[in-house]
Amino acid sequence: MSEKHLQSGDSLPPFTGKLRLFAMRFCPYAERSILCLNAKKLQYDLVFINLDHKPEWIFQFNPKGAVPALEYEEGKAIFDSNVINVYLDEKYPEIPLQNSDPLRRAQDKLLVEMFAGAQSAYYTAAFNPQAVEPSMVENFHKGLDLLQKEIESRGTKFLNGDEPGLVDYTIWPFLERFEALPILGQQEFAIDKSKYEILITYMAAMRDSPAVKAYALAPDTHAKFTESRIKGDANYNMLDTSAVCCMRPRKKKE
Amino acid sequence: MSEKHLQSGDSLPPFTGKLRLFAMRFCPYAERSILCLNAKKLQYDLVFINLDHKPEWIFQFNPKGAVPALEYEEGKAIFDSNVINVYLDEKYPEIPLQNSDPLRRAQDKLLVEMFAGAQSAYYTAAFNPQAVEPSMVENFHKGLDLLQKEIESRGTKFLNGDEPGLVDYTIWPFLERFEALPILGQQEFAIDKSKYEILITYMAAMRDSPAVKAYALAPDTHAKFTESRIKGDANYNMLDTSAVCCMRPRKKKE
Repeated sequence: MSEKHLQSGDSLPPFTGKLRLFAMRFCPYAERSILCLNAKKLQYDLVFINLDHKPEWIFQFNPKGAVPALEYEEGKAIFDSNVINVYLDEKYPEIPLQNSDPLRRAQDKLLVEMFAGAQSAYYTAAFNPQAVEPSMVENFHKGLDLLQKEIESRGTKFLNGDEPGLVDYTIWPFLERFEALPILGQQEFAIDKSKYEILITYMAAMRDSPAVKAYALAPDTHAKFTESRIKGDANYNMLDTSAVCCMRPRKKKE
Repeated sequence: MSEKHLQSGDSLPPFTGKLRLFAMRFCPYAERSILCLNAKKLQYDLVFINLDHKPEWIFQFNPKGAVPALEYEEGKAIFDSNVINVYLDEKYPEIPLQNSDPLRRAQDKLLVEMFAGAQSAYYTAAFNPQAVEPSMVENFHKGLDLLQKEIESRGTKFLNGDEPGLVDYTIWPFLERFEALPILGQQEFAIDKSKYEILITYMAAMRDSPAVKAYALAPDTHAKFTESRIKGDANYNMLDTSAVCCMRPRKKKE
């Protein structure tokens, strides 16, 4: 894996034959796929890229130049976190991360879709705080309400059941980042401990699950990266990314 | 089914026990699900609704109040054309509409995603023509190029193979409407017959396929509806919708 975020001018590391994910250490969409790879106990290489100075070769793997992209065979890739994760789950069925009932799978997708309003409010609050409007604060809390109600009505530890599944790993990266908002001075986006007791219990269980534990960052780390990005000088390499992903079998030096 | 588009104040027709789709006669997203229901030879009831004066009960089936929504059990529904179609295909596997290879299914989803630029250009050209910018005309033709190249490289009659599949039924409703643009005076959005020969052959084959034939409308019909909508008085009931969907077993009077 890359020791730092590769950028324009850097060459593409050689393909080792393993699945290879192109990501960015602080990207919630890339995190979705990393959690899925971890949970399915798949071996993979990870290449982090600088999204402000993209290496030219990223466009070979995703015409949009975005992360995540998954190189499943040398020079061949798919992109979009949801597309990647469903592909991985169907291609490598040993550890299934989706419910076996088609209706439940549809409901899981709709939950993710309905939660998107909270995500979009988060982006404004984090990266464009002066544009926050009351309707966004409302949408954020509506998303939390929806999620808490769903956890409660399903009556299981995770949305997926006794263990987290794709639906949990798809929503989690945003919950992880939501906790950075009060640190960034956005008190209106704090998650009220008494109102959201069930949600907070769920979040603690998610943070404690192996796939998440191996990759999640603390709220203040997210806040620091966000601050650097707001200043126009995103500090991609603020962490030692050579050891973040403990589920990969070993650290490899280039 | 409803003889006309039901609106605010109209009551919800009784549930008959069949799958029931809430749609709007001219909506491309609703059409995606109708084509899927037709192709899978499923029995269903159809309720058209007026999107400018929505009946209050539509929000019971889709909190966004949009179409399509599928009532799969009395009072219980899912929404979003892609979610509905994958659900139908997985729940009723007798006539499968997706490829059995997970990679091909991922590629089909990415094709739909990459084609979205052309769709969005279409919406501006049709409903907000004064806002058309050169980049939109470019995106539109990029979408056509992408699609034609994909049809050519797959080397099959349809994207899905010898018969159309979800990927074809998902893209088709937009191709059907693209042909209304020159009638609406948007000559820059015409599909060049010599440049897009392969695409045009594909479109003719799609129009001729049973599921599409039973529901598709002519370009000038789409143009007429679009004109009425631009004028602020969308003519939802300009067609006799009591017989449009020949795959339903019989016409039922309320």
